[in-house]
Amino acid sequence: MLHSIDLNSDLGEGYGAWTMGDDAAMLDIVSSANVACGFHAGDPAGILATLRQAARRGVAVGAHVSYPDRVGFGRRAMQIDPDDLAADVIYQIGALQGMARAAGTRVGYVKPHGALYNTIASDLRQGDAVIAAIRAVDPSLILMGLAGAPILSRAREAGLATVAEAFADRAYTAQGTLVPRGQAGAVLRDPGTIAARMVRLATEGLVQAVDGSTLRLAADSICVHGDSPGAVRMARELRAALVAAGIGVASFTGPAPNRMPGGGSAAG
Amino acid sequence: MLHSIDLNSDLGEGYGAWTMGDDAAMLDIVSSANVACGFHAGDPAGILATLRQAARRGVAVGAHVSYPDRVGFGRRAMQIDPDDLAADVIYQIGALQGMARAAGTRVGYVKPHGALYNTIASDLRQGDAVIAAIRAVDPSLILMGLAGAPILSRAREAGLATVAEAFADRAYTAQGTLVPRGQAGAVLRDPGTIAARMVRLATEGLVQAVDGSTLRLAADSICVHGDSPGAVRMARELRAALVAAGIGVASFTGPAPNRMPGGGSAAG
Amino acid sequence: MLHSIDLNSDLGEGYGAWTMGDDAAMLDIVSSANVACGFHAGDPAGILATLRQAARRGVAVGAHVSYPDRVGFGRRAMQIDPDDLAADVIYQIGALQGMARAAGTRVGYVKPHGALYNTIASDLRQGDAVIAAIRAVDPSLILMGLAGAPILSRAREAGLATVAEAFADRAYTAQGTLVPRGQAGAVLRDPGTIAARMVRLATEGLVQAVDGSTLRLAADSICVHGDSPGAVRMARELRAALVAAGIGVASFTGPAPNRMPGGGSAAG
Amino acid sequence: MLHSIDLNSDLGEGYGAWTMGDDAAMLDIVSSANVACGFHAGDPAGILATLRQAARRGVAVGAHVSYPDRVGFGRRAMQIDPDDLAADVIYQIGALQGMARAAGTRVGYVKPHGALYNTIASDLRQGDAVIAAIRAVDPSLILMGLAGAPILSRAREAGLATVAEAFADRAYTAQGTLVPRGQAGAVLRDPGTIAARMVRLATEGLVQAVDGSTLRLAADSICVHGDSPGAVRMARELRAALVAAGIGVASFTGPAPNRMPGGGSAAG
Repeated sequence: MLHSIDLNSDLGEGYGAWTMGDDAAMLDIVSSANVACGFHAGDPAGILATLRQAARRGVAVGAHVSYPDRVGFGRRAMQIDPDDLAADVIYQIGALQGMARAAGTRVGYVKPHGALYNTIASDLRQGDAVIAAIRAVDPSLILMGLAGAPILSRAREAGLATVAEAFADRAYTAQGTLVPRGQAGAVLRDPGTIAARMVRLATEGLVQAVDGSTLRLAADSICVHGDSPGAVRMARELRAALVAAGIGVASFTGPAPNRMPGGGSAAG
Repeated sequence: MLHSIDLNSDLGEGYGAWTMGDDAAMLDIVSSANVACGFHAGDPAGILATLRQAARRGVAVGAHVSYPDRVGFGRRAMQIDPDDLAADVIYQIGALQGMARAAGTRVGYVKPHGALYNTIASDLRQGDAVIAAIRAVDPSLILMGLAGAPILSRAREAGLATVAEAFADRAYTAQGTLVPRGQAGAVLRDPGTIAARMVRLATEGLVQAVDGSTLRLAADSICVHGDSPGAVRMARELRAALVAAGIGVASFTGPAPNRMPGGGSAAG
Repeated sequence: MLHSIDLNSDLGEGYGAWTMGDDAAMLDIVSSANVACGFHAGDPAGILATLRQAARRGVAVGAHVSYPDRVGFGRRAMQIDPDDLAADVIYQIGALQGMARAAGTRVGYVKPHGALYNTIASDLRQGDAVIAAIRAVDPSLILMGLAGAPILSRAREAGLATVAEAFADRAYTAQGTLVPRGQAGAVLRDPGTIAARMVRLATEGLVQAVDGSTLRLAADSICVHGDSPGAVRMARELRAALVAAGIGVASFTGPAPNRMPGGGSAAG
Repeated sequence: MLHSIDLNSDLGEGYGAWTMGDDAAMLDIVSSANVACGFHAGDPAGILATLRQAARRGVAVGAHVSYPDRVGFGRRAMQIDPDDLAADVIYQIGALQGMARAAGTRVGYVKPHGALYNTIASDLRQGDAVIAAIRAVDPSLILMGLAGAPILSRAREAGLATVAEAFADRAYTAQGTLVPRGQAGAVLRDPGTIAARMVRLATEGLVQAVDGSTLRLAADSICVHGDSPGAVRMARELRAALVAAGIGVASFTGPAPNRMPGGGSAAG
C-alpha cells in the first residue's frame, strides 16, 4: 500500500491576454504542476507567474513540452523530423529551467503534452527523440507518461527515471489503455465515482475496466484537470478523499527547494 | 596594453528553411558567438547546430536576447512592459542555456539584440528589466554592451560583470557614440582601414572620431559581422591584423569547457 | 437630431483554444462588429465563426487591424516602417474580406486596434500608411476613428469616408480627448450614467466633460465592450435606453447583404 | 499539339529579413507565380513586393496556401481538422487577393504547398476541405494539382476548374506518380535532359517513365524551381527550349490585368 501519491495538473496555459483554467486554485490541490513551455501555450510572463505561485506553495514543477503549434494547442499530430523534435524539447526544457530558477524553484520532470504525448506512446522514432532530448539537457529529469505505455520502459532502458500516471476522469480498457474519447463512457463525470476509483488505485493498485474486469495499474501520479469550475471541484474532492483514506498527496520528486513549513500541498 | 581582445559576432540567425550568414566561417574567426534565442531569429534545431559548432571550436557563447519580433528581426522598438520584458529575457537565456548544455558548452554572457540593444542604452526602465532578468536567472552571466553606454555602469552597480564592445565597421563621434547609420561616413567599408583602427584600439585604447579628434575607448570586445562574403573576409582580415600585431583573440569568459587543444579560435 | 446611431464592439478576439468575450451576446446588441484579423487576436476558424454569426444577424463587419503582436494583444506601440505597416494592413483587410465572402457578408469599414489606434491619432507617418493601405485594397472602405482625431480629417482629404466614434464608458476632457486611463474618473462604471450620457450624445451631440463643462461631440458610432458579463449587461442597457429614447441602433454602412427581415440588430 | 504551356514557380518565399530564391529572375522566366500567403513563408511587405513585380511583368498569380507551419516551411504533415483547414485556406486566399488588388493584379488560381499538396493527393477529408474553401471564397479560382492526382477530378466534380502540372526535374513511375525523393534517380539534374523531356511533354503529351516505358501525361503547366542559381539557369534553359520548339509560355488564366504590350513573360 502506498503512503502517498502525486496529483498533477496542466498549468500555465494562458497566453498573453488570454487565460485558461484557474492556476491558483489548482496549485492548492495538486503536488505537481505540468507547466506549459510556450510551444502550445504559455507566454514568458504568464509562465513565470505560475512558477512563482508553484514555488510559494512547494508544488513540484514539470516541463509540459509540446509540438510547436500554438493555434492548435499542441493537439494536432505532426510528422516532425526526430532531430527537430529533440531540439524543440531541449529548447522548451531549458526555457522552463531558466524561468524556474528565476522563480526560486526547479524543473523536476518532463511531461509531453497533447498530440506529442499520444504519438510517442507508439511512435518509437519520436519517442526516442524525446528521451534523447531529456538526457541531453539534464539526465536527472524524470519522464512522466501513461501508466503501461512502452515509452516508459524504453526511457528506463535509456537511463531515465520515469513516473507513471493514471487519469482520474478516464475509463480504461481491460488491456490498460484509455478508452478513446469518442466512445461512450470514455470520460467519467461523477466526482464521487472518480474519487472512489482513485482511492482504490492508490491503496490497492487496482481499477475497474470498462468491461467490468479488474485491472492492475501501477501509477505514481494521478492527472486532474482544472479547466472549468467543475473540474476544480472534482480535483478538490479527489484530494479530500485521498487524504481521508490516509493517502498523502505529495510529489514524487521529493521536497521542492522552497517548500514552506505547513505548505498546503504536502498533505499526510 | 592588452595581450588579447575578444571578437564577437551574431550567429545562429537562420530560421527553419531560411539561412543567414556563414556561421561555420565566422566560428573560425571569432572568440565569442552571440547566439540567437528564437525571438528575433533562430529555431531550436538551427540554434543547436550553431552551439555544437561553437563547442567544437571552443568559441564562447552569449545569449543574443531580443524583443519578440521575428518578422521585424528584433529591429523595431516596442513599448513593452518591463515585467514582460524581464520574463522574455529570462525565457530566452534559459532556452539557450538548456541547448548549450545539450551541445556540450555553456552560456557565458548576454548581449541584447537590435532595437533592445539600442533602447536600453537610454531607457532605464527597460534596461533595469534586462539587468534584473539576468540576475534572476544566473548572476554570474556577463552583460555585453556598447562601450561607454550608461547601461554598463548601471549593471555593475547591480552586481553584474560587464563587457564593453566596439564596432569594427562603425564611425564614432567625438563623444564616443556611434555615428547614426543614416549619416555620411557612419559605416566603414575599407578592410585595411578597419583593421588598422581596431589594432590601434586594442593596443592603445584609442580610435579616431569622425571629426578627426582622438577618442579614448575602453573596449574588451570587437563586434564583427558575417552576413555577406565581404563581411566574412573583412572579419578574417581584422583577425589576421590583430594576430600580426601580437594581439591574441580570446574570449573574456576564459576557456570554454570543450575548448580543444590546438583549436582554431584561441590565437596567441 | 439623429434618428439612429451605430453601436460597435471588438469581436472575434479568441485564438485557437482560448476564448475572449461573448460574441454571440454582443452580436444581439451591436450593429457593427470590429472583427480581429489574426494579428492581435483571431485564428481563421474563430474569425469565420464570428463572421457567420454576424452575417446571420445582419450586423455590419469591420476589419479590426493591428500591429503584428499577438502575445501583446496589439497593445504595445511599435516603431514599424510605414511601408511594412501598410502591407500588414492590406494583408489583414484582404484576409477578412475573403473570410467575409465565405461567411456570406462583406467588410464595410476598417478600425485600427489598440496601440495602432492610439499611435495614428498623432503619428502622421503611420496614419498615412493606414490610409494608403485602405485606399490600395478598397477605396470604398470607411475608416473608423476617435471622434475629433486628426486622422479622420486626413483620411477624408485622401478621399476616404470616415466614421467618428465615442466611447460609452470613457470620460472626456473639455478639449474632447479621452481622459487617460491612469487618471481618476477615466473609466465610467455606472450603467445608468453611461446610458444617459450616450442618449444625450445621440440626441443632442453633447456630452459632459470631466471638468463639468459641456462638450460638443459629433459621433456616428458608440463603442461598447463585451469582455465581461458586466460589460455585456452595460451594453444591453445602453441599447435599451437608446431605443426607449427613439434612437435606432443601425450600422452606418447601410443594410448588410444578408440582413434578414426582422433581424435583431436593426432596431427602429 | 499545344501551342503554349504554362511555367509556374514558387515565389514570395522570403520572410522578414530572410530571403529565398531569386524572384526577379524567375518572374522573367515563368508565366505563373505561386505566391506564398504567410503560413509557410512570406510576410506582407515581401509578398506585396513580389506581387508588384508579377503585375509589372504580366505574370499570373496563384495563392500558394499551406498548413500553418512557418518553422517547418509547410513541409510537415499535420492532422488538422478539416473545418480548421478550410478556414486557414480561406484566410490565406483572402489575404493574397487583398494584396493582389493593392499590387494591381488578381489571384487566378490556388496551389496547395508542400505537405498539404502531398496530403490532399490521397486524403479526401483534407482535400474536400481545400475544395470547399476555394469555392467559398471565390468559385472562379482554379485549383492547380499534380497531373493525374484524384484531387483534380474531385475538384471538377465539385464545380472547380483545375490545372494539372508536371514537375520538370522529377522522374515519374510507369503509373504516373512521382518517384519518391528518397529513391535513386528521383530528381533529374541535367538541364538538357530536362528541357528535352518537357518539350516532348508539351508537344506530344508523353514522358519517359523511370522504367523506360512511355507515359501519357496531360499537363497544362510545368513547375520549375528558383531556389538556387543552378535552378534559375535550368528554368531559363527550359523556357528557351520550349520557345525554340514553337511552344509559347503563357498562363492558363488568360491575360493578366496589367500585362504590358511586349511584356517578357508571354512568349509566342
